Amino acid sequence: MKVYAPATIANFGPGFDVFGMAIEKPGDEVVVKECDNFRIEVIGHKVPADGSNVAVVAAKALFKLLGEEGGVYMKLKKGIRPKSGLGSSGASSLAGAVAAAKVLGVEDDELIIRAALEGERAASGSPHGDNVIPSYYGGFTIIESISPLRVHRIDVELKVAVVLPEVEVPTSEARKVLPEKVPLKDAVKNLAMASSLVLALREEDIETIGRLLDDRLALPYRKKLMPWFDKVREAALNAGAYGVTVSGSGPAMFAVGENLREVAKAMGEAFEEMGIRAEYWVTKTGRGAKWF
Amino acid sequence: MKVYAPATIANFGPGFDVFGMAIEKPGDEVVVKECDNFRIEVIGHKVPADGSNVAVVAAKALFKLLGEEGGVYMKLKKGIRPKSGLGSSGASSLAGAVAAAKVLGVEDDELIIRAALEGERAASGSPHGDNVIPSYYGGFTIIESISPLRVHRIDVELKVAVVLPEVEVPTSEARKVLPEKVPLKDAVKNLAMASSLVLALREEDIETIGRLLDDRLALPYRKKLMPWFDKVREAALNAGAYGVTVSGSGPAMFAVGENLREVAKAMGEAFEEMGIRAEYWVTKTGRGAKWF
Repeated sequence: MKVYAPATIANFGPGFDVFGMAIEKPGDEVVVKECDNFRIEVIGHKVPADGSNVAVVAAKALFKLLGEEGGVYMKLKKGIRPKSGLGSSGASSLAGAVAAAKVLGVEDDELIIRAALEGERAASGSPHGDNVIPSYYGGFTIIESISPLRVHRIDVELKVAVVLPEVEVPTSEARKVLPEKVPLKDAVKNLAMASSLVLALREEDIETIGRLLDDRLALPYRKKLMPWFDKVREAALNAGAYGVTVSGSGPAMFAVGENLREVAKAMGEAFEEMGIRAEYWVTKTGRGAKWF
Repeated sequence: MKVYAPATIANFGPGFDVFGMAIEKPGDEVVVKECDNFRIEVIGHKVPADGSNVAVVAAKALFKLLGEEGGVYMKLKKGIRPKSGLGSSGASSLAGAVAAAKVLGVEDDELIIRAALEGERAASGSPHGDNVIPSYYGGFTIIESISPLRVHRIDVELKVAVVLPEVEVPTSEARKVLPEKVPLKDAVKNLAMASSLVLALREEDIETIGRLLDDRLALPYRKKLMPWFDKVREAALNAGAYGVTVSGSGPAMFAVGENLREVAKAMGEAFEEMGIRAEYWVTKTGRGAKWF
């Protein structure tokens, strides 16, 4: 059996730790077989091929949650670059959890997600759900709460330009720079932007969506880890983007607008000008994880 | 000419300073005539009948914004009790601004609202828009930004049980107890609840709306000014409410649910048991200000 889990844009503008969107490409794929222990083989992007791989962590977590013995053998085709800001560990964790679920015959969403979050915890120290959850359900997701699991989904079709530079912003570092407390006025501003963004997404009003791709909760603190941010943002806006911001905790960035091929190219070139190689592409809201 | 401005439920659950909803009753009414200075007469609830009345402050502000000479004579029928938490100063400010706009032939929403906010500033020290704006537009409003004025409106029809006890929580006091900084996790929780509430309102899913009537940004600090809060909330939930919280900065509270007459009565009785007289009624989302 094969499981596919898509990359995701977490944080998504003002929706820190709450909003996430699955995208069509890239994604991680796992071929899974029942086995008496947990083994993994990896092709594609380089990640550990042992028990520290988050797909294994998540698969083990599901077995443990259910009190099951045994294991799975997984062949992971790693399509999402690790530490890209595109939900690489979330997709692998989810693929591992879904793979284990298929072997065990489990269909409980909450259990699968809970197991996948253990993979996220291993990857970043924090079991945040804003990659795992959109990767599972597809579309744009709002996490009302993790426990109990309450997720709302917006079935939008939104095109995005994505740029991924050959630099890294480790998720754990990106968490460390966040303060414990934030100004109340910033909390209110994000709340206003996030609530407005929900309506704009429902109406597929890309101009308003673009305008609302901002954040006062995490971005102001994380920008110091991304000295290229302002230049790339400016290049995207100059190329006609309605809005642009970081994907997850970076370094990937994404933009919304009309001429997204040009916007993507402009962002890629802005990185190149700073001596940083970068891939760029245009994609759109993706479906959730699938198995066949 | 006559102007009517409805009462409003500001803050509305997790939407501190951002969400507001007009309700059908009560409201303030102003009969206006052109005049060479600013004069006011008041009937109904007791408020100043001089230049310190927020309707006069707002009317004057509009004249000033436009560089106009002259004034208005207003007869204010004050239907909303001051310091009730139901947008009393917001409705009077808006009625004053709209009255002046009608006399001057002004139709610019942003100017009218800006003038009304001056009334709010005089009343509470802070020109917050979450009463003035729903009182003007009606329905449920989300303030994306005040300057420039960007408001989103949800055309929901939501029934609410309202209770108004004979105690006061002055708005300025309610602002003073708020901290300058709040825990990031509380900001994220409110963002999650507020974004989810927007979808629930769009879908008129009153069970989810009720569940989301909570707040981590202001309520935890303001509850100490409302020692009755937990008892009244419990009474409403026991009577079958899906959710209940404070309206504006209180003392009014409102609940969402099915048997709202019983819920309203239960809240009223809970106050009476604490020796506080209270009015209660059932109303629903109202239209915005009107003139005839």
